[in-house]
Amino acid sequence: MFAIIMAGGSGTRFWPASRQHLPKQFLNITSDKSMLEETVNRILPVIQEDNIYTVVGNLHAKLTNKILGETKSHVIVEPVGRNTAPCIGLAALYARRRDENAPMFVLPADHFIANQSEFIETLKSASEVSKQGAIVTLGITPTRPETGYGYIEINSECDGLSPLSPSEEIKLRQVAALQNCFRVERFVEKPDAETALKYMTGGRHLWNSGIFIFTAKTILEEIEKCLPLLYAGLQEIDKSIGKGDEQNTIDKVYKGIESISIDYGVMEKTSAPIYVFKSDFGWSDVGSWQALYELRENEYDADKNLLLGDVRAIDSKNNLVYSNTKRLIALLGVEGLVITDTDDALLIADIKRSQDVKKFSEK
Amino acid sequence: MFAIIMAGGSGTRFWPASRQHLPKQFLNITSDKSMLEETVNRILPVIQEDNIYTVVGNLHAKLTNKILGETKSHVIVEPVGRNTAPCIGLAALYARRRDENAPMFVLPADHFIANQSEFIETLKSASEVSKQGAIVTLGITPTRPETGYGYIEINSECDGLSPLSPSEEIKLRQVAALQNCFRVERFVEKPDAETALKYMTGGRHLWNSGIFIFTAKTILEEIEKCLPLLYAGLQEIDKSIGKGDEQNTIDKVYKGIESISIDYGVMEKTSAPIYVFKSDFGWSDVGSWQALYELRENEYDADKNLLLGDVRAIDSKNNLVYSNTKRLIALLGVEGLVITDTDDALLIADIKRSQDVKKFSEK
Repeated sequence: MFAIIMAGGSGTRFWPASRQHLPKQFLNITSDKSMLEETVNRILPVIQEDNIYTVVGNLHAKLTNKILGETKSHVIVEPVGRNTAPCIGLAALYARRRDENAPMFVLPADHFIANQSEFIETLKSASEVSKQGAIVTLGITPTRPETGYGYIEINSECDGLSPLSPSEEIKLRQVAALQNCFRVERFVEKPDAETALKYMTGGRHLWNSGIFIFTAKTILEEIEKCLPLLYAGLQEIDKSIGKGDEQNTIDKVYKGIESISIDYGVMEKTSAPIYVFKSDFGWSDVGSWQALYELRENEYDADKNLLLGDVRAIDSKNNLVYSNTKRLIALLGVEGLVITDTDDALLIADIKRSQDVKKFSEK
Repeated sequence: MFAIIMAGGSGTRFWPASRQHLPKQFLNITSDKSMLEETVNRILPVIQEDNIYTVVGNLHAKLTNKILGETKSHVIVEPVGRNTAPCIGLAALYARRRDENAPMFVLPADHFIANQSEFIETLKSASEVSKQGAIVTLGITPTRPETGYGYIEINSECDGLSPLSPSEEIKLRQVAALQNCFRVERFVEKPDAETALKYMTGGRHLWNSGIFIFTAKTILEEIEKCLPLLYAGLQEIDKSIGKGDEQNTIDKVYKGIESISIDYGVMEKTSAPIYVFKSDFGWSDVGSWQALYELRENEYDADKNLLLGDVRAIDSKNNLVYSNTKRLIALLGVEGLVITDTDDALLIADIKRSQDVKKFSEK
């Protein structure tokens, strides 16, 4: 099996810790390791290092090689970001050359998973389904009426929350693996608040995690059908692999291809069936400082402060401090703040305003 | 006339900006200049540079010379702090050698004065009284029931707030000068809240500003009477002046003398009459970050933030930011905070808790 780790993102929601040169996946915000390392480590129980491909932008190639340099995993460099479809297609070329029928896990590098063993079990089950040639995605059971995510709607023929039966469409090695597997009816864009509430309570919508499982053969065939221009470019790259001008060819092809997501370019267009595993392994895309504060609740001090740095707090509660400096940070009588200290910028914000932090980055 | 600037303090209430090596009088908190420079500049309309003596501790001699190096003023170095009586006595030796009957203004280096011209006028009037051989002090009309200051009680014979008449005790060159001058009944220690309220409304108590005016002859005679051991030490120093071993003698004498304030050592013991000028020139001892915030109100932005540094504030109000770094400081949705950024420590506090900031310094 292979893993494709998508590390090309350039988030600004963790400003000033995240910057153009240091986006979220390279930050040690969820533990003392970077989120990229966490993502790699998380899948090591089922994937050999040599079968891991991390796709990054040019700007972060050096940093990624530094972080992953001691592993046997591979780094693929995109000259410019072209969204997820080219990224996944490019990585699939390498997997196809080694085993086109082996399941590929496509994983964003900047997600948090609380329950790792359940996550691994889900991946294993999904890989069984993908081996049949299917596209599989992981959907997260909504725990709040979130308007910031895309949703996956389960096929009505599945009778609400009842899972696929073993007789349906694909043969199974493990029946148990499919108890949370459903046919996807459609992918849904970010909803408004009212719709999100319906989705949460309706039982037929899941959060689109952006995690996919398919074989290289499956996804490249789908790209060929749905995005033929992209496929032509990928074929050109494929021919150059091992010929010494591989990176030049990638750079040349990327200049000419369209920026498009795998969701929009393939998932919403394909006529092939797509399956989704309803998942409850404690997923978060860690979309803000507040989200980070909430997911690390087991590390709070007695006053519910999450203190990541050299901090002394007096009469202060519900604060998140994240520092990558050696400066002493003293809190006195403050509540509900996020404080982020870096060498050249300092943020002090109401933690409930976390979503607006990107305003500073834009400035 | 002479000025003695007492710059030996070692405050911790402006932590982390103020430190052992950089106490409040060396901070540019009241303007873009240090409080010491502000103190010097404030008296230049009435005192020649050459007649200014700044007394500092050993630790700050270099810094003081750097700040005042381009002026013709003098720096006197104390090897250790021994409170105000030795400090004033030491400086008075130098004044006595030049003109023992000239008024000396004794000024703490870390006070703020809003109305400079009124302050100068008060000093001029006080100097007239001091020339008669009297001890004069400046008392501030209380504007709140402050429990953190000592008070000066006006003599009851003065009939409350009515000033001394020209016929009393001292001859006058300028009658007008005495319209706010009273006999001091006694110096009072810091009161409790209830007493402070009575003082504020009673009309017979003024804040003890720690500013004194007397001649070198007067104060050295009083020290001789009230603190004979200190006087003996001062005489020993006096003999060494100009002999090449002046600093060594100061260092030796200071090791053996008692630490004592001029208030306790002289003012409360002397039988000589003391006069006080009731003053309303916008005095502050700038005792906390909150006090600083309040006295610079004319520099607030539209949201009543006092932003001293490279700050961008969104939806934030009533904050004080003081930075001596080049870091960008971003505020989002925060209120009533004091934020102090220095190279090695950062404070974020409820501005109403300013008085407790010293807790960090103690740690």
